Amino acid sequence: MEEQAAPVARNRKVVLREYISRAPREDDMVLVDGGTVALRVPEGAAPVVLVKNLYLSCDPYMRGRMRDFQGSYIPPFNPGSVIEGFGVARVVDSTHPGFSAGDIVSGMTCWEEYSLINKPDQLSKIQRSDIPLSYHLGLLGMPGFTAYAGFYGICSPKKGEFVFVSAASGAVGQIVGQLAKLHGCYVVGSAGTNQKVELLKDKFGFDAAFNYKEETDLTAALKRYFPEGIDIYFENVGGQMLDAVLLNMRTHGRIAVCGMVSQHGLTDPVGIHNLFCLVPKRIRMQGFLQSDYLHMFPQFLGDMAKHYRDGKIVYVEDMSIGLENAPAAFVGLFSGKNVGKQVVCVSQE
Amino acid sequence: MEEQAAPVARNRKVVLREYISRAPREDDMVLVDGGTVALRVPEGAAPVVLVKNLYLSCDPYMRGRMRDFQGSYIPPFNPGSVIEGFGVARVVDSTHPGFSAGDIVSGMTCWEEYSLINKPDQLSKIQRSDIPLSYHLGLLGMPGFTAYAGFYGICSPKKGEFVFVSAASGAVGQIVGQLAKLHGCYVVGSAGTNQKVELLKDKFGFDAAFNYKEETDLTAALKRYFPEGIDIYFENVGGQMLDAVLLNMRTHGRIAVCGMVSQHGLTDPVGIHNLFCLVPKRIRMQGFLQSDYLHMFPQFLGDMAKHYRDGKIVYVEDMSIGLENAPAAFVGLFSGKNVGKQVVCVSQE
Repeated sequence: MEEQAAPVARNRKVVLREYISRAPREDDMVLVDGGTVALRVPEGAAPVVLVKNLYLSCDPYMRGRMRDFQGSYIPPFNPGSVIEGFGVARVVDSTHPGFSAGDIVSGMTCWEEYSLINKPDQLSKIQRSDIPLSYHLGLLGMPGFTAYAGFYGICSPKKGEFVFVSAASGAVGQIVGQLAKLHGCYVVGSAGTNQKVELLKDKFGFDAAFNYKEETDLTAALKRYFPEGIDIYFENVGGQMLDAVLLNMRTHGRIAVCGMVSQHGLTDPVGIHNLFCLVPKRIRMQGFLQSDYLHMFPQFLGDMAKHYRDGKIVYVEDMSIGLENAPAAFVGLFSGKNVGKQVVCVSQE
Repeated sequence: MEEQAAPVARNRKVVLREYISRAPREDDMVLVDGGTVALRVPEGAAPVVLVKNLYLSCDPYMRGRMRDFQGSYIPPFNPGSVIEGFGVARVVDSTHPGFSAGDIVSGMTCWEEYSLINKPDQLSKIQRSDIPLSYHLGLLGMPGFTAYAGFYGICSPKKGEFVFVSAASGAVGQIVGQLAKLHGCYVVGSAGTNQKVELLKDKFGFDAAFNYKEETDLTAALKRYFPEGIDIYFENVGGQMLDAVLLNMRTHGRIAVCGMVSQHGLTDPVGIHNLFCLVPKRIRMQGFLQSDYLHMFPQFLGDMAKHYRDGKIVYVEDMSIGLENAPAAFVGLFSGKNVGKQVVCVSQE
């Protein structure tokens, strides 16, 4: 039997140049021509799925994978190899019975035009609907679920409580704030530009918001916004903001530690000074990963899709167009350049 | 009817000179002659109890009451007035129906020879037994209950887990370590002298112990004692030890923050740098006060008295003799001079 030659396509990739320990720069990543890729999965191969990547997610946790450190919950990238991350993709060919050409999937993929997914079980099929496909990287994806799991799983929220969210217009923060409002809390957010502050108040319905870069005294600023103190702090930034929050927490307050994007880990010269507040105020401070709460994922999907369709939750994303712009989009996360959830559109179909 | 003149006694007191914000010094407190005290409660007075103080407790939390800060869970002392603290005392006279002359009580009293207790409802009567009276300030008192409430209420201990206790020979630490051993945990303690380290191993039955002052690298030291990492840290000291612990915690670890005796609060120049560990390791770090767990107190008393009588828990106290030595005894807490629970014997009967 004569085999027809499989159609092929060029496949550009974004590759990590080498491990870094500082904040990432654009030239730590390089766009390379990966040659051609056959657009058909070889017969008899183990169950694999070939996808065309449509949308890629830029997430702060990925910075941890750029370090040469094996001890974390997720292994580091390989220098010289393509970067991995969450994405939404269209199935081109598949030897896995659960997927067929034309399906839209989300899951771990690579920063390239076409990816051969060797562990297709981690992919989820997406039903096309009125919800934009890229929202499966945010509102209905890992960041949205991080907000959901952290708020309901860690914060123990009660109606009427005072909630503070830092990096509040980001992929996670905007959802936390809106969930807290729906829960009957009083919600204040901080962000790094006046444009984001307006977004928080006008678009996401926060009760108040402020630009932390315009405050010379964060402790006093929080005192102004929370004269009775903070019950729940959803921590995305660390550093000076955390110190100021500790002084403004109420008795039996909760701090859900989602990330500390301002922190440089071991190389950070400034420490946290106000942990002594934990004892007299009986504060619970708890780090978490969304992956520990996957039993809540189906409920999350249902709740969020309903909130979105009911107009009770909105979502803002910052879309960069073209794989070649992925490095700049990613680096922008760490200086707050993005307005809303940062995604990269590789292709629209 | 002719009234008989009440007998009187001299009454010396220890008075706080003025508010301080640094570590306390001996001369921040002064022993004064408080004149004479009538050893009978005036007829018709509101329910009050006159006691002769036998044992006084020196506790680190009292340092917080020497600051001019109203916002804490307990108000500051009044400069020029006698210092308050937990004590064991003998009732001399009483107009409260619950107490009569000769009763032994524990509760909040003052650093003086005789005290008129205006709120006798906070006193507890002690049945004389084979347990030394002064142990009601430690093993069966606030420090013992702090250990009990913190270990069972915050640490969520499981058999076989790895437990680290700092300031481990102190009033609270020695109980935490022994409770953890009884629970089937592997327990290591740190202390500041070799004498205390021996005590931890030989007297309290810790699996291992080390002198933190002899370690140049606390992170490496903890790695040595916990090659598989720490599940539970009972935090008494803060500072560099906390930073080293964070790097050595296991996934889903718990840190019960009981106190941070090394921390100088706002004046501390060195901060905590390793809080970024909270997220990937999903660490819960929680401050607590024993007073939130008073519902557990009766069970605590029963458990501890039984453990003590069964020889399963021992207790070591450091007894200073004479009210005049109370300031030095208290100040010694902050340089680790005490070996075991620091108490002051004012009088044996």
